[in-house]
Amino acid sequence: MIGPFARKESGALDKPGAIAPGGVVGILGGGQLGRMLAMATAKLGLKAHVYAPEADCPAAEAAHAFTRGSDDYHRGLAHFAKECDVVTLEFENVPVAALDLASRSTPVRPGRRALDVAQDRINEKSFLREIGAPVTDFRTVDGITDISDGLMAFGGSGMLKTRRFGYDGRGQARIEARGPDEVEPKARAAFAEIGRAPAILEAIVAFRREISVIVARGLDGATAAYDPSENTHENGVLRRSMVATGAIEAETAARAQAIATTIVEKLDYVGVMGVEMFEMPGGALLVNEIAPRVHNTGHWTLEACAVSQFEQHIRAVCGWPLGGPARHSDAVMTNLLGREAADWAEIAANPDLSLHLYGKAEAREGRKMGHVTRLLRPSWAR
Amino acid sequence: MIGPFARKESGALDKPGAIAPGGVVGILGGGQLGRMLAMATAKLGLKAHVYAPEADCPAAEAAHAFTRGSDDYHRGLAHFAKECDVVTLEFENVPVAALDLASRSTPVRPGRRALDVAQDRINEKSFLREIGAPVTDFRTVDGITDISDGLMAFGGSGMLKTRRFGYDGRGQARIEARGPDEVEPKARAAFAEIGRAPAILEAIVAFRREISVIVARGLDGATAAYDPSENTHENGVLRRSMVATGAIEAETAARAQAIATTIVEKLDYVGVMGVEMFEMPGGALLVNEIAPRVHNTGHWTLEACAVSQFEQHIRAVCGWPLGGPARHSDAVMTNLLGREAADWAEIAANPDLSLHLYGKAEAREGRKMGHVTRLLRPSWAR
Repeated sequence: MIGPFARKESGALDKPGAIAPGGVVGILGGGQLGRMLAMATAKLGLKAHVYAPEADCPAAEAAHAFTRGSDDYHRGLAHFAKECDVVTLEFENVPVAALDLASRSTPVRPGRRALDVAQDRINEKSFLREIGAPVTDFRTVDGITDISDGLMAFGGSGMLKTRRFGYDGRGQARIEARGPDEVEPKARAAFAEIGRAPAILEAIVAFRREISVIVARGLDGATAAYDPSENTHENGVLRRSMVATGAIEAETAARAQAIATTIVEKLDYVGVMGVEMFEMPGGALLVNEIAPRVHNTGHWTLEACAVSQFEQHIRAVCGWPLGGPARHSDAVMTNLLGREAADWAEIAANPDLSLHLYGKAEAREGRKMGHVTRLLRPSWAR
Repeated sequence: MIGPFARKESGALDKPGAIAPGGVVGILGGGQLGRMLAMATAKLGLKAHVYAPEADCPAAEAAHAFTRGSDDYHRGLAHFAKECDVVTLEFENVPVAALDLASRSTPVRPGRRALDVAQDRINEKSFLREIGAPVTDFRTVDGITDISDGLMAFGGSGMLKTRRFGYDGRGQARIEARGPDEVEPKARAAFAEIGRAPAILEAIVAFRREISVIVARGLDGATAAYDPSENTHENGVLRRSMVATGAIEAETAARAQAIATTIVEKLDYVGVMGVEMFEMPGGALLVNEIAPRVHNTGHWTLEACAVSQFEQHIRAVCGWPLGGPARHSDAVMTNLLGREAADWAEIAANPDLSLHLYGKAEAREGRKMGHVTRLLRPSWAR
C-alpha cells in the first residue's frame, strides 16, 4: 500500500501551500453555490465540509460532511475550521468576525479584505475608484439630506441601496423625482422603504446592457478570466446569461477582463470572483458590483469549459494550478425561478438542455430553484 | 410556501413511476462509479444514499447519506431500501439475494434478470446467442476435460475465465497449447490458476480492436446509445477510451449501437449498460461482455455530452426522460492507475485536461485512482 498523496502540504510536488487530494475544503454557506462547489470538490478527489445555519440545505446534500451552525456563523465554527485544510465561502455576507475565528486555525480564502470591501457598498465603490476602475457616481447616505443632495446632483434620479446585506434586488429603492418639489418627499419615502439603514445613492446610468466577468486568482498570483457574459435581469433577479461569439465586441470583452483582473490583483484575492459591469452605449464600462465568490452568471462554465468556475474556485483556494478559462462552445444559461422548476420533466425531455436542480423543497416566488444550460455553436466556428 | 415537486409519484406531470426531485436514489456499491452517480444525482436535485461494505469509500464522500453494510450486502439493507425511492447499483457483483431483499420495499433498477445474466459468463453468452447477438465460441467448464476438449476445438488456444466475479482481468488465464501433448497439462495448470472454479473457455479471436457502446433504456422503453468508443487495455485494465469522428466506420458504429440496443430491449433493462465488443478485421462485431451499470469506457460523456452516462443512468432508474446521447466534441479519456495519480498537480496545470480523482487513499498498483479527459475537435467539424 502506497499513499499517493501527501496529506496537507504536498512538498514533494513542489506546490507550497497546496492541499493535496484527500484534503478537506470547508465551505461557509449552504446554498446552491455551495452545492456546486461541493461537487467540484469531489471531482478533484477532495472532501467538502459544509457549514451552514440551515438544517436541510442544498450544499449539505452534496458534501462529505455537514456542520449545522448558527445564524451568526459562530456556533461550532472553531471546531469546524480545525477539521478543514482550507475554509472558503459561497456567500459574501458571512460575518467577518466568523472569518477571523476560522482563520485562527485554518487558512481562509478569499480572506477578510475581500469581504470587507464586498460587504459594504461604500467600501466597494471607494476601493474600485481607488484602483482606477470606472464606477457610477455615488453618495454616502446616512440620512435624508444625503439622499436629497445626491438626487439634486444626479438630475433627480438615483438608486438607493443599503450599504450591507443586499442581494437579488433586496434593500433597494429606485427614486425618480420629476422636480425639485418631489426630491425631499421621495427621498424620505425611499429611505423608509429600505428601513433607514446606512445606504448608498447611486446615479442611474442608461446602460446598453449588463455584462459580467468571472475571474480567478490562484495562490501563486496567476489569474484567469472567462469570457464575459451578457446578462438579463428580471425584477432584480438574474434570468439569463449568454456567452456567444460576437455578442460582445472583442475589445470591450478584453477591457472587461482586464478590469476584473486588476480587481483581484489589487485585493490579493484568492478564488473566483464575479464582477458585474454596465456596458454604456459608447462601449465604456462601469463596474456595478463585485461578488467575492462563484457567481450565478458563471454557471454556463459547467458545460462550456474544461474547468468550471466551481472547480476553478476550489483549485484556487487549494493552491492548485488554475484551469484554462477557454470555452469550447457558446452557451446560454437560464435560471429556473420559483414554480418554473415544476416543469423539470419537460425540460429534462429536451435533448439540448443540461438541467441542474438545487434540491430546494420550497418554491417561493422568484427563488432560484435550478438552471438550464444550452450549448450553442462551438467556439471553433467563430 | 409551495412545494414544487410532487413526492414520489409525480402524477401531475403525467410521468407514472417517476421519482420527482427531492427523492432518494439508493446506490449499492461504494466505488468511483457510485461517486460519479452520486454527483449526477445531486445535479438533478435528487438525493443519493450509498450502501457499501467499506467504511471510507469514494461514493460515500459525494453522497447525501451513507449506510455501511456487510460484504454480503445484507446488514441493514432492508432498512436502507425503505429509505430510498429507487435502488440501483454501481457494481454488478451485488448478490442477487440482496436485490431480492431490497425489492421487497423499493423498485430495484436494473432488476435481477440483468444481474443473473451479467454475473455468470455462461448465462451471459447463452443469453446473447439466444437473442442473436454475435459472440465468440465458448465451452462450459466444470473440469479439466472440458478445457481440453475446448482447446482441441479452438485450435489449441483459449481464454479460461471464472464464470462469476471476475473483473479487470482477474480470474482469467490465457492458454496456448503448441501441440496436442500440451493440451492436458496446460488445461490443468490454467484450471489451478483460476482456483478450479466453474468457468468458461472462450475461443481467442484475432480482433482488430475493442470498442464499446454505452446504451440506456428508460422506464418507458425509450433507448439512447452514445457513440461507440475505441478502447485500449493494458494488463487487463482499461487504459484509454477515444471517441473520434471517423475512427470507427459509421456503418460499424451504427451496427454496434443496434446490437447494444437489442440487448437492453430483450432484457427489459432499465438504466445504463456498457457493452464491450471486438471489431474483427472485416468489420464484424462480437459481443465480449456486458456490464449492467455505468462503465469506465463512458467517462468521456461527462465532458463531451449534454447528459453524461451517470446522469443518464439516474434519469433512467428514476423514470425520467432519457437525455440525448449526441456528443458535441471528440474526446479521449485516459485512466490514472496507481501511482500515476501522484502527478495530479502537473495534470491540473494542463489547460486542455479535465481531471477527475476518486478520493482513494491507497494507490495500489493498477488501481483506478482517477481519469483525465481531453476534448478534441468538435463534432460539428465532422
